[in-house]
Amino acid sequence: MIPAKNLSEREIEDALVSLPGWSVQGGKLHCEYKFADFVEAFGFMTQVALLAEKRNHHPEWSNVYNRVSVTLTTHDANGLTMNDIELARLMDRASIGETPC
Amino acid sequence: MIPAKNLSEREIEDALVSLPGWSVQGGKLHCEYKFADFVEAFGFMTQVALLAEKRNHHPEWSNVYNRVSVTLTTHDANGLTMNDIELARLMDRASIGETPC
Repeated sequence: MIPAKNLSEREIEDALVSLPGWSVQGGKLHCEYKFADFVEAFGFMTQVALLAEKRNHHPEWSNVYNRVSVTLTTHDANGLTMNDIELARLMDRASIGETPC
Repeated sequence: MIPAKNLSEREIEDALVSLPGWSVQGGKLHCEYKFADFVEAFGFMTQVALLAEKRNHHPEWSNVYNRVSVTLTTHDANGLTMNDIELARLMDRASIGETPC
């Protein structure tokens, strides 16, 4: 597998236009999802877990009942790459309309 | 449902004898599980999610690849109750032998 290239600040800014709920915090992509309840929150996590494992690119995330907090970075690149942007897009697609991200 | 009773310090100490990987941090039960990889870690989380939803008692937890960090408390009781001890025991049972908790 070819290592993913680090994104420039401009490339990150451009990508964030289509990821309105996401922000960069400490050099990582961050988002807080809120769902109706635990079943919806963990259902979302399960969808994302399958997609993440398939791509071998995994989120750092935490869950408290109906909330899922996500941080994305590419450890091999020590920064953000297209793998993070793509995973963020997949997560937004897997989330249900009522969440802020 | 009858609200669960807060545990005394002595009751918590007694319970921790059979939960060797767990400790009390800031008044909450805490444990760090480590698995072989993401599939094992998320498989564990999925088992626990079903058990937690069934009991309507959910963990606060975070996951980074093969690690799962868990915090348990009973919000309604503003402290630890037998619901936390029982969920900790279920989690230890759901985890695979190689984890520290």
